[in-house]
Amino acid sequence: MIFITRKETFSAAHKLSRTDWSEEKNKEVFGKCANPNWHGHNYDLKVTVKGEVNPDTGFVANLSVIGQILKSKIIDKIDHKNINLDVDFMKGKLPSTEVLAIEIWNQIETEINALGCKLHCVKIQETEKNYVEYFGK
Amino acid sequence: MIFITRKETFSAAHKLSRTDWSEEKNKEVFGKCANPNWHGHNYDLKVTVKGEVNPDTGFVANLSVIGQILKSKIIDKIDHKNINLDVDFMKGKLPSTEVLAIEIWNQIETEINALGCKLHCVKIQETEKNYVEYFGK
Amino acid sequence: MIFITRKETFSAAHKLSRTDWSEEKNKEVFGKCANPNWHGHNYDLKVTVKGEVNPDTGFVANLSVIGQILKSKIIDKIDHKNINLDVDFMKGKLPSTEVLAIEIWNQIETEINALGCKLHCVKIQETEKNYVEYFGK
Amino acid sequence: MIFITRKETFSAAHKLSRTDWSEEKNKEVFGKCANPNWHGHNYDLKVTVKGEVNPDTGFVANLSVIGQILKSKIIDKIDHKNINLDVDFMKGKLPSTEVLAIEIWNQIETEINALGCKLHCVKIQETEKNYVEYFGK
Amino acid sequence: MIFITRKETFSAAHKLSRTDWSEEKNKEVFGKCANPNWHGHNYDLKVTVKGEVNPDTGFVANLSVIGQILKSKIIDKIDHKNINLDVDFMKGKLPSTEVLAIEIWNQIETEINALGCKLHCVKIQETEKNYVEYFGK
Amino acid sequence: MIFITRKETFSAAHKLSRTDWSEEKNKEVFGKCANPNWHGHNYDLKVTVKGEVNPDTGFVANLSVIGQILKSKIIDKIDHKNINLDVDFMKGKLPSTEVLAIEIWNQIETEINALGCKLHCVKIQETEKNYVEYFGK
Repeated sequence: MIFITRKETFSAAHKLSRTDWSEEKNKEVFGKCANPNWHGHNYDLKVTVKGEVNPDTGFVANLSVIGQILKSKIIDKIDHKNINLDVDFMKGKLPSTEVLAIEIWNQIETEINALGCKLHCVKIQETEKNYVEYFGK
Repeated sequence: MIFITRKETFSAAHKLSRTDWSEEKNKEVFGKCANPNWHGHNYDLKVTVKGEVNPDTGFVANLSVIGQILKSKIIDKIDHKNINLDVDFMKGKLPSTEVLAIEIWNQIETEINALGCKLHCVKIQETEKNYVEYFGK
Repeated sequence: MIFITRKETFSAAHKLSRTDWSEEKNKEVFGKCANPNWHGHNYDLKVTVKGEVNPDTGFVANLSVIGQILKSKIIDKIDHKNINLDVDFMKGKLPSTEVLAIEIWNQIETEINALGCKLHCVKIQETEKNYVEYFGK
Repeated sequence: MIFITRKETFSAAHKLSRTDWSEEKNKEVFGKCANPNWHGHNYDLKVTVKGEVNPDTGFVANLSVIGQILKSKIIDKIDHKNINLDVDFMKGKLPSTEVLAIEIWNQIETEINALGCKLHCVKIQETEKNYVEYFGK
Repeated sequence: MIFITRKETFSAAHKLSRTDWSEEKNKEVFGKCANPNWHGHNYDLKVTVKGEVNPDTGFVANLSVIGQILKSKIIDKIDHKNINLDVDFMKGKLPSTEVLAIEIWNQIETEINALGCKLHCVKIQETEKNYVEYFGK
Repeated sequence: MIFITRKETFSAAHKLSRTDWSEEKNKEVFGKCANPNWHGHNYDLKVTVKGEVNPDTGFVANLSVIGQILKSKIIDKIDHKNINLDVDFMKGKLPSTEVLAIEIWNQIETEINALGCKLHCVKIQETEKNYVEYFGK
């Protein structure tokens, strides 16, 4: 068993804010992340996959292929977009980094596992100070 | 003459888009940066100041004081904000990294130079791949 | 179960040296880290917490609150200080990175867990080449 | 139980290519990594070791000693070399990052464990976007 | 006048070695960089351009366009290649970082300046410890 | 004319404090950097040299040789040391980053220039947020 990781990046806007809460309540809970006119980040996305080494190729899986899956399933939908408004798989969800990691897992799990390996971790770094890791249910 | 630099960071939303241009024209010129619903970045701001070393302190200027000026004049106004909508000194201006660097220079020049040194460079890194440097007129 | 991490930084002096050993013995065991007049580092502190996502907030815990705990319990006591001489929770202990990680865990565990999540890892990076991770007993 | 990590770096050439496959097949499977005239990388090698803290030293193991083992067993053999042609422990093996991680583990396990700790992970970062982790059989 | 910079990366093999010198002489002058079977690096390429801000766009030049020039003129020719053997603009030249920076400048100057700005600097980082900057003749 | 840069690192303790000032005055001027029991940093030292490319070698100067000069003249004297107490060329001087940059310049200028190039810049990064550059008188 060996673990391989692919990093991709995207830049997006979001805000943490519930429509069923007042602006004051949102500000109290989410602080400056509740700014009504949005803010944004450069996000690092790291996807880790585990499996056996294929003796023919020396690969668990081809990291370029994993990069292409991430591009078509995630990056093309979220890069230079508004996570609250523009991203289909985040519609109606709170765009915290935690929820984003879970939803990215859900978007890619089937296609990753079809490569003959197993999705192990989705890690999202939102700022230099904050990151989140999800290992599935 | 010696040069000292302070780095601060902020996260903000913006879009590159002119209201007097059609959405098609904006998309043609600004590409994915024209996304109508905004996108965002983690920005690094580096401010370089030059001057003589004060023999009493060994400092050109106290970098903590420069950090406080950046905080009150720039970071408090732009961090977790929308550059197009929320930032007074960017009102009515195109929020390209170039224009942002010039306007940040204009916001801080007087107060920096009042420390007995001279503002030398404002550098803004927008993504890992792109940055801008302004040295004044 | 999801994992969230907060990074903080501090700069401190220390030396690795036992008073019950001769200077030669200390130098033999601890090498240049035993320099009698101290040396120092910029340390990165990463604290990882695990828990369920709160459906109201999308958070496991508010990373700003974790940052405040780290600030009051650790950073305010150790930043720009001497780890051997100035830090109450390191008194009488060898200030190796291993011991520091364990003692930081002990300082913050109760307050972190009171947030409704569980402290998972304390990671300290001492130099670009060396780091330590502690996951509790 | 605590985990300590040492980072070393090396620069090397390699290609991914099987002599029992045609150039077309190699290109199809390995893409640009199959370039016949080689290519190369700056590699980061991180070795993680676990153990109990020695109460006399505050160390799991001396990270300088681990650095020396890595230097003599790995870095001196692979730095500024061709992984396919020059490195004894990679002779006849596909120089994928996965295989390299496993073979580095095999080279150092005995000597690391003789320090009274246990080898836990060999991590190799090949590019900014790709890395591999091996935790043993 | 404002300065904008684009970063691209490539991975390549090379060796420093003159065919009109003996292997001993090459080793004496170029050290481990003379390894006959090549070695390689991940290179960072930063290209800085200067000009006036276009009032219609807020840009000196579109950094994506500069990225495309770098891709077609440099990256596509050198990434995952052997600098000594595979790269047309380096044929017959010593592939030191200094010479590489000058030859990259020569490859891109006309096309960059045709954008209405002026090529200012080509910076190549070969390892974490070594980089080179060329500002033209 | 081309510019080449070598990075080295060191870890050291220091404090900013004048013996002819009271502890209160030192604290007022130097803030937390005046902590009587010292503090410390991991410093990055970057030395830039300029010159013509030697057509025989493709080098302005051999960066390994510059690294050796930095090691013998600077790193061996300051790494894992106390800048105020242990470093001969800082005796009696305020160990601000500015003064340190000037004194490092003075230590290495003759030997660097004897390589047939010219010392251009000494840059010291003290923390992620603060750095200093000195270009000579």
